[in-house]
Amino acid sequence: MTPPPETPLSYAQAGVQYDLIDPLKIAAQRAAAATGAHLAGHGYAEVAASRGESAYVVDLGPYYLASIVECLGSKALVADAMQQLTGESHYAAIAQDTIAMAVNDLITVGATPLVVQAYWAAGGSEWFADAARARALVEGWKAACDACGVAWGGGETPALAGIVEAGRIDLAASCTGLVNPKARLSLGERLGPGDAIVLLGASGIHANGLSLARKVAERLPQGYLTEIEPGLGYGQALLAPTPLYAPVTEALWAAGVAVHYAANITGHGWRKLLRHPKALTYRIHTLPPVPPVLRFIAEQARHDAAEAYGTLNMGAGFALFVPAADAERAAAVAQSQGVPAWVAGRVDAGPKQLLIEPLGLRFEGEALQLR
Amino acid sequence: MTPPPETPLSYAQAGVQYDLIDPLKIAAQRAAAATGAHLAGHGYAEVAASRGESAYVVDLGPYYLASIVECLGSKALVADAMQQLTGESHYAAIAQDTIAMAVNDLITVGATPLVVQAYWAAGGSEWFADAARARALVEGWKAACDACGVAWGGGETPALAGIVEAGRIDLAASCTGLVNPKARLSLGERLGPGDAIVLLGASGIHANGLSLARKVAERLPQGYLTEIEPGLGYGQALLAPTPLYAPVTEALWAAGVAVHYAANITGHGWRKLLRHPKALTYRIHTLPPVPPVLRFIAEQARHDAAEAYGTLNMGAGFALFVPAADAERAAAVAQSQGVPAWVAGRVDAGPKQLLIEPLGLRFEGEALQLR
Repeated sequence: MTPPPETPLSYAQAGVQYDLIDPLKIAAQRAAAATGAHLAGHGYAEVAASRGESAYVVDLGPYYLASIVECLGSKALVADAMQQLTGESHYAAIAQDTIAMAVNDLITVGATPLVVQAYWAAGGSEWFADAARARALVEGWKAACDACGVAWGGGETPALAGIVEAGRIDLAASCTGLVNPKARLSLGERLGPGDAIVLLGASGIHANGLSLARKVAERLPQGYLTEIEPGLGYGQALLAPTPLYAPVTEALWAAGVAVHYAANITGHGWRKLLRHPKALTYRIHTLPPVPPVLRFIAEQARHDAAEAYGTLNMGAGFALFVPAADAERAAAVAQSQGVPAWVAGRVDAGPKQLLIEPLGLRFEGEALQLR
Repeated sequence: MTPPPETPLSYAQAGVQYDLIDPLKIAAQRAAAATGAHLAGHGYAEVAASRGESAYVVDLGPYYLASIVECLGSKALVADAMQQLTGESHYAAIAQDTIAMAVNDLITVGATPLVVQAYWAAGGSEWFADAARARALVEGWKAACDACGVAWGGGETPALAGIVEAGRIDLAASCTGLVNPKARLSLGERLGPGDAIVLLGASGIHANGLSLARKVAERLPQGYLTEIEPGLGYGQALLAPTPLYAPVTEALWAAGVAVHYAANITGHGWRKLLRHPKALTYRIHTLPPVPPVLRFIAEQARHDAAEAYGTLNMGAGFALFVPAADAERAAAVAQSQGVPAWVAGRVDAGPKQLLIEPLGLRFEGEALQLR
């Protein structure tokens, strides 16, 4: 067992300074909101409630259109480091992570993902010369599309020497889908007291918190090769691909379970449960097991439970808010798709807050500022 | 006048080695094509003829869905260099370029662009700390959305230290639109002998060929500050924003002009006129004026006409293939939208080739390999 160091590591220390990015984000959100009216000129309409949600929704008349672009983030750096250490390419897993970032966001609004576009910006043409790595990326991308029943429409593979660092790749995906029938829209209008919270299991860190995870690796004498459990290395555990939750949301619709709201648990960890603007209290009574890699990071970074659950997914990759009567069935449907699931809590009337009762934790409504 | 150096500069020397990227592209295209059948499971269908075109098209029943992701490329490096030299931010123009890359591709299939998503991946949080530059990016992005009548749905602003170089930004845009009514689809089924070729004017280099343009700057004693015309500096001329052609295609539809096919003239210059797989001869009789910045680059790189027209847009930013009877009207409609346009050629029966008659140039069908 690797003893944790004495110095804690915060997420901000790990390199992402939201205070520098947030003014731009707010200006961009305001400017973007002012463009929604253009749709009327074409005979369509923005669904204003989707502003601030994970995907943007347009009312086309017979159904809704949803679209998104999402970035993998810095997880590719872990794959690169592991390839240096072991010679093995992890880019098939990295491809799935990238698609999961886009698809798992798109489905929160009730959309069926239809088309994915690939954005693979390399630091130079020579990135593509590693044939095994390039093949892994292509094969992993296709396999993830197959798993989600989505068409891979095309994409961009620019060589961006001078912008992307030599030997690196900036991976992103756009995804477009439809909410059809319109009753599937899950922007939270029906979210309210009495709803159950069903959590879907995470495979590990997914693609958020990697800056922190990389800082942890830097402080370990054996780095990514540190064993976190017998036979399980740290780097290997970090590279477990993000689950694709689209088959679950499709199966829920087919089973007649009405999803009132959904949250993809990414950056800001469980604070994402506070995503919807309504004043509601989210009370968690059951915790999913914490993946060993997340327990290890929290220990090594000396995070207390509040910092760990406020930063990482801690075993819950996705949250569904469903009528209480459907909660057990929703969990069973997820399990039938191979995704662990727990009826983990309920929505109560009350101030906007998240109560994680088994840990005695409380996050206030202001703990998440997304709009 | 700056005398041209004796050594020529090819596009490959400028840093983009297609032979390294192409095997991955081909593997990706094959894998992507195999995913199109997934759409049937959701009740929709791929429009197979859109594979290899600039946007991917899905038949939704009442209309077609089109989507795309596009990258700015390395033009931001010119804006960064100019900001160093003059203190002025050109990111409003750069924003328009990025949206133009996506929108001008999307409209080739006959789609009305509806939603743009922003992908702004910076080399670190501190990129966003330059408030004037960040504001220019936001304002330019919104203005371009306004000009195209498109809704800015949202996007991603990751800080990617270790992947994107410090102080740099990787800019891309996704765009989603509809072909409605379905008769607007312009994938080339109706393209044939007798059609006229209408060329829309370019403002300068747009966002392709910038690697070459930057190499040219490196060889100039005064670099980007070199005057290419009295009062017009090289860097300033390079940063003229790409025109947004969506208002033209919308106005053409409103005017009853049926576009049989369209090509966005980007990488590979005029070889893009050979984009459609049909065996047809494209005969150009009228050349648009060459923007001074492109004439300067061709001279400085010692390109002959074949290399210049096979690499750069040389004044033609977009090509419309329309019925001969509508050609003059199509050009007039474009002019009414503030875009210069010329009835520049015609489509003949014959082998696949492009003949640029005023220059005695011929490009064979194999000069462009996109599928």
